[in-house]
Amino acid sequence: MAMTTTSKKQIKFGFDFTSVPDLVACIQQLNNWGYSYACIPLVHAKLKPDATTLDRSALVSRADVILQAETWNRVVVKLSEHLNLDLADSSTRDRDAELFRQEVSYASYLNVFAIMFQLPLNGCMPNLARLVNVALHENMFINFYVRVPMTCGGKGDNNGICDSDDNSSGTTDTWKLWSAFSAACDYHRSVCLALELSFDLPDQQELDRWLGEPIKAVIAPTSIFLTNKAGFPVLSRPHQMFINKLFDLDACIFISGEPNQNVKPYFEYLSFIHDNNKSDKLYSYSYGYEDLLQVPLQPLINDLDNNVYAVFEQDPIKYQQYEKAITKALTDKVKSGSTEVLTVCVVGAGRGPLVNASLNASDKSKVAVKVYAIEKNENALHVLNYNNENYWHNLVTVVGADMRTWEFEEKCDILVSELLGSFGDNELSPECLDGAQKLLKKDGVCIPSSYTSYLSPLQSQTLFNNMKMFKSNTPMEYLHENAEQIYVVNMRNMYIISPAQPLFTFNHPRSDLERNNNRYTTLTFDIQQDCILHGFAGYFNAVLYKDINISIEPSTFSTGMFSWYPAYIPIKSSVTLKKDEQLKVHFWRLSDASKVWYEWSISKPNSMPVHNPNARSYSMQLH
Amino acid sequence: MAMTTTSKKQIKFGFDFTSVPDLVACIQQLNNWGYSYACIPLVHAKLKPDATTLDRSALVSRADVILQAETWNRVVVKLSEHLNLDLADSSTRDRDAELFRQEVSYASYLNVFAIMFQLPLNGCMPNLARLVNVALHENMFINFYVRVPMTCGGKGDNNGICDSDDNSSGTTDTWKLWSAFSAACDYHRSVCLALELSFDLPDQQELDRWLGEPIKAVIAPTSIFLTNKAGFPVLSRPHQMFINKLFDLDACIFISGEPNQNVKPYFEYLSFIHDNNKSDKLYSYSYGYEDLLQVPLQPLINDLDNNVYAVFEQDPIKYQQYEKAITKALTDKVKSGSTEVLTVCVVGAGRGPLVNASLNASDKSKVAVKVYAIEKNENALHVLNYNNENYWHNLVTVVGADMRTWEFEEKCDILVSELLGSFGDNELSPECLDGAQKLLKKDGVCIPSSYTSYLSPLQSQTLFNNMKMFKSNTPMEYLHENAEQIYVVNMRNMYIISPAQPLFTFNHPRSDLERNNNRYTTLTFDIQQDCILHGFAGYFNAVLYKDINISIEPSTFSTGMFSWYPAYIPIKSSVTLKKDEQLKVHFWRLSDASKVWYEWSISKPNSMPVHNPNARSYSMQLH
Repeated sequence: MAMTTTSKKQIKFGFDFTSVPDLVACIQQLNNWGYSYACIPLVHAKLKPDATTLDRSALVSRADVILQAETWNRVVVKLSEHLNLDLADSSTRDRDAELFRQEVSYASYLNVFAIMFQLPLNGCMPNLARLVNVALHENMFINFYVRVPMTCGGKGDNNGICDSDDNSSGTTDTWKLWSAFSAACDYHRSVCLALELSFDLPDQQELDRWLGEPIKAVIAPTSIFLTNKAGFPVLSRPHQMFINKLFDLDACIFISGEPNQNVKPYFEYLSFIHDNNKSDKLYSYSYGYEDLLQVPLQPLINDLDNNVYAVFEQDPIKYQQYEKAITKALTDKVKSGSTEVLTVCVVGAGRGPLVNASLNASDKSKVAVKVYAIEKNENALHVLNYNNENYWHNLVTVVGADMRTWEFEEKCDILVSELLGSFGDNELSPECLDGAQKLLKKDGVCIPSSYTSYLSPLQSQTLFNNMKMFKSNTPMEYLHENAEQIYVVNMRNMYIISPAQPLFTFNHPRSDLERNNNRYTTLTFDIQQDCILHGFAGYFNAVLYKDINISIEPSTFSTGMFSWYPAYIPIKSSVTLKKDEQLKVHFWRLSDASKVWYEWSISKPNSMPVHNPNARSYSMQLH
Repeated sequence: MAMTTTSKKQIKFGFDFTSVPDLVACIQQLNNWGYSYACIPLVHAKLKPDATTLDRSALVSRADVILQAETWNRVVVKLSEHLNLDLADSSTRDRDAELFRQEVSYASYLNVFAIMFQLPLNGCMPNLARLVNVALHENMFINFYVRVPMTCGGKGDNNGICDSDDNSSGTTDTWKLWSAFSAACDYHRSVCLALELSFDLPDQQELDRWLGEPIKAVIAPTSIFLTNKAGFPVLSRPHQMFINKLFDLDACIFISGEPNQNVKPYFEYLSFIHDNNKSDKLYSYSYGYEDLLQVPLQPLINDLDNNVYAVFEQDPIKYQQYEKAITKALTDKVKSGSTEVLTVCVVGAGRGPLVNASLNASDKSKVAVKVYAIEKNENALHVLNYNNENYWHNLVTVVGADMRTWEFEEKCDILVSELLGSFGDNELSPECLDGAQKLLKKDGVCIPSSYTSYLSPLQSQTLFNNMKMFKSNTPMEYLHENAEQIYVVNMRNMYIISPAQPLFTFNHPRSDLERNNNRYTTLTFDIQQDCILHGFAGYFNAVLYKDINISIEPSTFSTGMFSWYPAYIPIKSSVTLKKDEQLKVHFWRLSDASKVWYEWSISKPNSMPVHNPNARSYSMQLH
């Protein structure tokens, strides 16, 4: 289940200055334009000719006295481009390493927003990676923006210490370079991607893969724009679509143009695109909480509070679908014109949205119903009783009980519940409904009648880092590992490596109640392109009744429904996947008398340890 | 530097019983033979026909009352072979999983020495791996012996939940199966290998690779033996060589034969092989401390104690080589028959072994010398003075000083030192000798005159696990990581993936003293077969003088020299390497005013984080 806010996102714009003779004038221009960030060379242009000396007192021309401290906070500085940090010649290399250190140290002192440098396109960068690691160790609060072009026609030059075979093909896969560099920096959260857009876009798979990287800045050269009939800059349709996804990631967009070029029309055009952006269905339902991990609710052991009920009751789709499903079931049960009264039990009634749906369905189907509302949360019972008196004409029987233990002589025709978690069964709907099945007549109907969990492999350095840094406010167990816990998360900064596949299905009612709800399934995913596995997205698709579904699985998503964020199921360490390889995943649902849990492992392309053996880190409590 | 003991290793023998109708008689037989371990089926043979029921009260026939508790400690139990833990059919699979749990639980209760099971040769084992993980979580003190044949002609049958493509080739690479299983168990130290020897041995590379696995038991079927002219069992020469290496690993050797076969001659033959084993040069110099990690000495900040000096002075090779080198240098310096007196400075003289070598060299070369012994450890000075009075006729000038700061007007002809660590420069010989170089005449000779560190990639789950579990007795630094520390270790249970390559070379004396001793080198290793990288072995080869060397690098090893164990340089997480891939390693030697340190990273086949950036975990102190 998910939370929602209504805040509207602010777009971040900046300008990429190639040369800044006068810093004060540059910032003034930025303020006039009304944009947030300036990207400037750290070293003054006039210093360039003798920048190879270690005495760089002319850096004083950028001295902190010129700008106020808070203005530096809006400046991204670019390190000198001529530094040869992986040169075979050790004396030049060592000198340039010292220059690099000086520049980073000075930028850190200025407390700039970020430090930008270009990734060498010849792939020769172990020493650069080392220097970045050292800088991160020495300066706690710096952020690096690593500038990488989205595509690169030719391979870079090679006079470095690396073998030239690193780069023997005609074109450079810049994603691989970035990915290797990022790994060499241990996927540090302060080493972010500044993606430089190109006029020719790569194919959709490659575009999507970039979206799984921690993009914090986007460089949009004016050269990627077209000119429309009226003479104004516009973007091709594919560029528009891609840049809208970058807006969603909250990346800062830097226009990069010729000196003295009037770039205002470019900003205006991008603002126009942003304001007219109808985010796609997956992203439309909420703002806020992007990529923030939350522990799933455990409704069997924790009572929900009033606020949670209030938020979820606002879902515009879910209760419509329930109402349709109950209407159809009532109609199917009773011959037209009959005066038979059907019994509906709403189990886990909460504050009553499914009672409303049942009463509405009765009106629509013209089938009379007797409704029981069963709820174990004694606080919610007050609201149910209030609603019964004030809105339901005391026609509803409110019962304070656990559906699994309540005794009911009469038996009902329809058992309605909303017990699903993001990953389908992960809030223990199977166990609850098995327990409540005794309330149902032999030919009775369960709504939902079945549900299936789905799994997609995903790449997301951001989710993976957030998982590793996650601090739960629940008490830490002895062996608890963050990677052996399931999360719910409003996923943005990620790439779905392969479409979701069905994992576990549960049907209600079922005839083999003596069997447990344990499951073991193996899924095999084909890998379309080189990428990095950081875990799995988990979804569900539920059949409420016959053809009426609710789903958060992307291919069948119930547009507009916001009650569930997807689940994130992490792995302990990231896995490099190669094009045409297979990824084989094993997933178990297991239980004992007090709890239910998942275990998972990977056997292809390489074996990974079994995660969460014997529920050592994570379980869902039955009592 | 290394320690040595003289304890002689005891061989562990056992017998693998296929069927044990009478447990007491079986143990009695074992005692009669005088061997240590029995490997028996956990479940009594008569139970086999109905072993698929969950009621296995007949297990009582193995009840703990039959044997004393300490006898169970010499028993390895074999789990039932018919368990189908990865069957597609879930009801059989779940039932067999419960039988597996019961058997492991019972074995754990009996406190047996180890629990053995066969690895399924169809490669279908994710659920088995899961159950082993769970068992390890539930039972703290159990050990699993995973029985794997060294080679396997046919592929296994496949009715499992896994795809049949896991195993499409005609033969099964059983190492890959073991490696995958081991990974799925997170390389748990209680999941060990029981290697079953075959009549046909694989090639040498594959044999060597097995030696990098945690082999705790070896199954030697009587069928792998030949019969000699006298009618006694013997092994082929390659089998003898391999089994001798297994003795070195301290593995228990289980003979596996027909029931009622007289196996005594097999034990006697293996004992004979063991007793006649001349361990090869790498392993001959010491027993004890196998695969135990030690932190390298830091002689510049910690004074050595008397015991350490005493052990190292016993090295039978090192001081011979020094004596030869000094003799040759003296001879070269002085024309035959000259009466010139040469000055020799022994820097870091310790208790004086190199003073002895210098005086002996003077005798042999008939070149008169004046010897200075410079030592900063004031405790060792007492011994130097004592030796000077009692053995050296007060001909030696003993100086209590740090060689880097001592002022010496006279200057010497030969500067002798023994400052090398296992990894060459890692005890800061370059910095010490640079500091001492002012003691030397312009045309003076340094002994050693140069030294080179060497690096080999290695596979060793044992070293890797020991590294992860390592607890230093030095104070923990803020960010200390075990994988960013260098160790010295008497390596046994390991596989050298590729021959050592030279890394850093230092020459003495040198003309460019104003430069630091920083280095950056990239090495590329070709991978011969699939394997797992767990880090690197570090060695040195030193030129004492001209053609006189001391070396612990395997291809040039100074046979008999025991003063140094190799260095182990770990990596944070193991890397799967494929045949014909390249492994590219980057190694830095770096320094500031107070310390020297290494950083290292890998850029091929995939990028790894830079290890030990800015010496955050490990450094060698100059003061």
